[in-house]
Amino acid sequence: MANRIKIGIVGATGYTGVELLRLLALHPGAEVTAITSRSEAGVHVADYFPSLRGIYDLAFQTPEEAGLEQCDLVFFATPHGVAMRDAPALLEQGVRVVDLSADFRIKDIPTWEQWYGMPFTAAETLQEAVYGLCELNRESIKTARLVANPGCYPTCVSLPLLPLLQHNLVNTGMPLIADCKSGVSGAGRKAAVGTLFCEAGDNFKAYGIGGHRHLPEIKQTISALQADAAKGFVFVPHLTPVIRGMHATQYVHLQADCNPHDILSSFYRNSPFVDVMPPGSTPETRSVRGANICRISVQKAPQSDVWILLSVIDNLVKGAAGQAVQNMNIMFGFDETAGLQTAPLLP
Amino acid sequence: MANRIKIGIVGATGYTGVELLRLLALHPGAEVTAITSRSEAGVHVADYFPSLRGIYDLAFQTPEEAGLEQCDLVFFATPHGVAMRDAPALLEQGVRVVDLSADFRIKDIPTWEQWYGMPFTAAETLQEAVYGLCELNRESIKTARLVANPGCYPTCVSLPLLPLLQHNLVNTGMPLIADCKSGVSGAGRKAAVGTLFCEAGDNFKAYGIGGHRHLPEIKQTISALQADAAKGFVFVPHLTPVIRGMHATQYVHLQADCNPHDILSSFYRNSPFVDVMPPGSTPETRSVRGANICRISVQKAPQSDVWILLSVIDNLVKGAAGQAVQNMNIMFGFDETAGLQTAPLLP
Amino acid sequence: MANRIKIGIVGATGYTGVELLRLLALHPGAEVTAITSRSEAGVHVADYFPSLRGIYDLAFQTPEEAGLEQCDLVFFATPHGVAMRDAPALLEQGVRVVDLSADFRIKDIPTWEQWYGMPFTAAETLQEAVYGLCELNRESIKTARLVANPGCYPTCVSLPLLPLLQHNLVNTGMPLIADCKSGVSGAGRKAAVGTLFCEAGDNFKAYGIGGHRHLPEIKQTISALQADAAKGFVFVPHLTPVIRGMHATQYVHLQADCNPHDILSSFYRNSPFVDVMPPGSTPETRSVRGANICRISVQKAPQSDVWILLSVIDNLVKGAAGQAVQNMNIMFGFDETAGLQTAPLLP
Amino acid sequence: MANRIKIGIVGATGYTGVELLRLLALHPGAEVTAITSRSEAGVHVADYFPSLRGIYDLAFQTPEEAGLEQCDLVFFATPHGVAMRDAPALLEQGVRVVDLSADFRIKDIPTWEQWYGMPFTAAETLQEAVYGLCELNRESIKTARLVANPGCYPTCVSLPLLPLLQHNLVNTGMPLIADCKSGVSGAGRKAAVGTLFCEAGDNFKAYGIGGHRHLPEIKQTISALQADAAKGFVFVPHLTPVIRGMHATQYVHLQADCNPHDILSSFYRNSPFVDVMPPGSTPETRSVRGANICRISVQKAPQSDVWILLSVIDNLVKGAAGQAVQNMNIMFGFDETAGLQTAPLLP
Repeated sequence: MANRIKIGIVGATGYTGVELLRLLALHPGAEVTAITSRSEAGVHVADYFPSLRGIYDLAFQTPEEAGLEQCDLVFFATPHGVAMRDAPALLEQGVRVVDLSADFRIKDIPTWEQWYGMPFTAAETLQEAVYGLCELNRESIKTARLVANPGCYPTCVSLPLLPLLQHNLVNTGMPLIADCKSGVSGAGRKAAVGTLFCEAGDNFKAYGIGGHRHLPEIKQTISALQADAAKGFVFVPHLTPVIRGMHATQYVHLQADCNPHDILSSFYRNSPFVDVMPPGSTPETRSVRGANICRISVQKAPQSDVWILLSVIDNLVKGAAGQAVQNMNIMFGFDETAGLQTAPLLP
Repeated sequence: MANRIKIGIVGATGYTGVELLRLLALHPGAEVTAITSRSEAGVHVADYFPSLRGIYDLAFQTPEEAGLEQCDLVFFATPHGVAMRDAPALLEQGVRVVDLSADFRIKDIPTWEQWYGMPFTAAETLQEAVYGLCELNRESIKTARLVANPGCYPTCVSLPLLPLLQHNLVNTGMPLIADCKSGVSGAGRKAAVGTLFCEAGDNFKAYGIGGHRHLPEIKQTISALQADAAKGFVFVPHLTPVIRGMHATQYVHLQADCNPHDILSSFYRNSPFVDVMPPGSTPETRSVRGANICRISVQKAPQSDVWILLSVIDNLVKGAAGQAVQNMNIMFGFDETAGLQTAPLLP
Repeated sequence: MANRIKIGIVGATGYTGVELLRLLALHPGAEVTAITSRSEAGVHVADYFPSLRGIYDLAFQTPEEAGLEQCDLVFFATPHGVAMRDAPALLEQGVRVVDLSADFRIKDIPTWEQWYGMPFTAAETLQEAVYGLCELNRESIKTARLVANPGCYPTCVSLPLLPLLQHNLVNTGMPLIADCKSGVSGAGRKAAVGTLFCEAGDNFKAYGIGGHRHLPEIKQTISALQADAAKGFVFVPHLTPVIRGMHATQYVHLQADCNPHDILSSFYRNSPFVDVMPPGSTPETRSVRGANICRISVQKAPQSDVWILLSVIDNLVKGAAGQAVQNMNIMFGFDETAGLQTAPLLP
Repeated sequence: MANRIKIGIVGATGYTGVELLRLLALHPGAEVTAITSRSEAGVHVADYFPSLRGIYDLAFQTPEEAGLEQCDLVFFATPHGVAMRDAPALLEQGVRVVDLSADFRIKDIPTWEQWYGMPFTAAETLQEAVYGLCELNRESIKTARLVANPGCYPTCVSLPLLPLLQHNLVNTGMPLIADCKSGVSGAGRKAAVGTLFCEAGDNFKAYGIGGHRHLPEIKQTISALQADAAKGFVFVPHLTPVIRGMHATQYVHLQADCNPHDILSSFYRNSPFVDVMPPGSTPETRSVRGANICRISVQKAPQSDVWILLSVIDNLVKGAAGQAVQNMNIMFGFDETAGLQTAPLLP
């Protein structure tokens, strides 16, 4: 496998880390050669994740030992703050980076600092970061050294909106409203009471209404396309007892006489990972379980002027690790679908 | 127990039927004396529902054998069409009726016929039916012979709106939007592929966007209080993998300077089954599991004029059997909380 | 309510604590007057557990402030080690104690110390502790000052065995085998990766085969009744993705010609909380959800000499808080079923 | 793709059918060219299973229209009775068959007729059927025209036993006991009350103790290897609320001084889909979710002579469609792992 690119994963003990490992196991042009974790250094990945027994012969290493500078690409699957600190040195050594954390997603530094509660220390690097929503920035991703992989909510919310915003079709007389529902894996694999089986199971609730960190990220995308449409944007996340899956239900006024279904179909006709479903469809999260797909349907509310945009993704795939691999494919000239062709797991 | 009122339940093999049996088992003033089911006639209820072993010594009977006319109150826990056919004769014999089906909820007969797809045959009886949303119609329920128990979505959606609509506070420049999520038991206990464990489990989806039967019921309530607010009302139901539980997230513009939290708190200060939570709360469905409570919270969306109304109920209790017992309590002069005091089951 | 007994709960922030609060809310003869938690001192219980809003007007206090010595009965719902340290002083002050932890369950101190990994410091108190398996020790519980409430597995495993062991019917040519499955709430409400929704959900596994702390507790009960039957006893616990519920499947050889169904039925004919189901039944955990019941069924394996004993409990009720209240009822001369009469929550 | 073998699937609307489609979508040497369903004839498979949108351009056809005789291999994913009726004609036309139903699993016709309740009508064909437990019959599968794909329980139970039985290591002084737990998808995708989300969810129970159809299938495998070990074999299936997954816990006496871990490791060292885990491991069902793997661990019960064999499979993969593809690979000389290399989906 001498001609495969070498991949490093920083912070591979979480859900996005193990998902990267799962997806990259079948990639024809990439090979994971280094995985890091301070807490699990020395532990074999197959002992930590028995699902990977027989697939990987790798152990976690500390970042210092791992030789990340010899990789062609490093994924950061870390809490915020880590990539900001460690990515610049890798970039200098010629390693390209896809950051799955939030560090390089927000272009306005004061906004980032307000929402993430720490000083931002990589202003220069930020300037070259490309926001890795593949369907929006495919061209600039090709040559990017540093890609900021989008959040799960921003991916699920933005994809149905992009074509409409690009044509300035959103009527701002009514605020855009995004009512979103996330599976529990979005909260990560850290010990916490709120995501225990007996707390999150058989339960449904809203959370973070006062302000979720994905709100400024979504607004940044919206306002770049149709500036006035971000004003008054309403975003309410909810937690639903599924392991993987995210569903956005958006309410929007559009310019009269537009046909949003046709506009979306046209916009995404060459995008292998966005599926605009027939009018009247209701996408379900399990139809994308384990796959790098966003399915979208547009419906008009009965006896109303409001359009309803429905979209689903697997928050760990198109909402995280899958989109990261898609970004890698674009960056390195692989087929955009390489390693991402497995069908969703249903049931 | 000679002085307890005698209760009959028509169609007691479904989830609302078994829930009525669970709740009435502890009621100090009522005794279930007849339960009917054509398909299970002759079967002991404790063989059918092992959870009721040791609690009831009753067998299902056909409606003809059951002697329903000797009851003081009969609950209909049946598909639509049955109460419309059978309730009038019982009323004539002096039996009072609480109908958990949709037959007597809609006052406009053509609307009912359009949504339920059959001719309505009890026009005279309909005139005396009282819509059993207890907190709205408590006074008229007291003397009602026939109460139409509300649907689960209409209960969950209407309770946060009632106080605002009564004061004409809804600003109709933006349509009212109700994004609702229901647990699977709302679909009933009939064999169906769509509600199998492997279809509804680990999955989230919208459904019925083109038109759910609860839409005209909700609009009827809204328009009676603030006529213009029902226009353009948007209702999107979703299915979430919880057994019991319903969550409504509503988006509304209100008149400037009003304080919806205080208005709701004041309106419901004497309602034992509506809990207006402190500002900033996010009610969760499990906090009402098994209990006849609607918890409500009001929040302002950040950087927006939109108010968010959150409400949760157990769809089988305040959304069905519990509210039916509450109606019975009001009709017969029991304490409104009789038989309904058990705490929610958490976890 | 001046003549109600006063109840204190030490460690009321866990699942057994909130379950005690739920059950005692409806008890006619007892009133919770003090709840303690060091970490949550000062927090109102209804802010901590929103399911209790409107039911309790109590705040957590430190054990020192709580005035536990003024209670008639104190429940310890704490990790092991706490009751051993704090119960003796309360007993001296005339307070009776039901300990839901493991401190006083094992009579042999070296065994306890081996399994719980700390020195046992209350040897004198241990002598008076009564093992609170109500159906076994009802008489001695009546006058006990200190009751050691049994573990969930020991309750579920022991109840089907008791009648057989008492008659020396277990044929020890084959070891007794208990294959047990527990819902996740048995692991408590502490932050831990292993019981996250995304780890324990949609998953099934065995655990603790090398030795679970409930093994010596079960063996103690068995050997007291039929000494040789404890030898070689096999106990394998599993984790199943239900919130509440425990199921034991036991395999046993019995003396020829005995009828275990009749023996169990006779033994438990006056026990309100043990339900011996008809031959051929298969009890399910949800048939006891939220209720203080153990349902048992006995079946002969086809073409085999092995008897299969099936039993189910709600691990938080008959396996913890419900049995604790049952013990309280016996200790204080209440009706054994007081406060424990609510029907299981189904579905 | 002219040189790919042509595949037909009879009865492709169920869970094993859609799983075959998922797995075969990535197979390098096979192409699905015909799928049949009487009830859904004319419906596009991607409209029926939205998870397959963009992957298959095929519609269901009636068996008569489908041209199955032009296939190289036909999978039967049908209820019992169909393959028995239709496979012989296909075999005569040179089409090879893998039957996922039970029709050709049992060699003794009276036994089959007793358990499946219908006359067996393909006695001649039965003689050439090879029982498709790949790890047992790999050689004879290579040349088989007709493979009877094993049931899920028989696969999960037999794999840990095979090496021990082949060496006559099972001590028959104690009966072999298999306590098994299945996810709900094992019951198939038919409308039924018992497998509704609200019936099977948050619930655990045994079922079919009086006799499950997989019992004679398991006994046939056992007795062929070590005749006396099948006598008195005890099999208790349970239903656990997971979608995919099966767990067997077996209790067995072995000849003294044998090391079952080493025996299993040696036996399976060349089997890519059986993973013998290190001593002390406890396999979990999610570690094989979506993958064609059986993971096994062996442990000695503490203070006992009993060995505990733990094994997990995904009942739809190694327990059904995956093993069927593995059989196809062996039959057609593909690499045994072709199309079966995707990593398990975790979480």
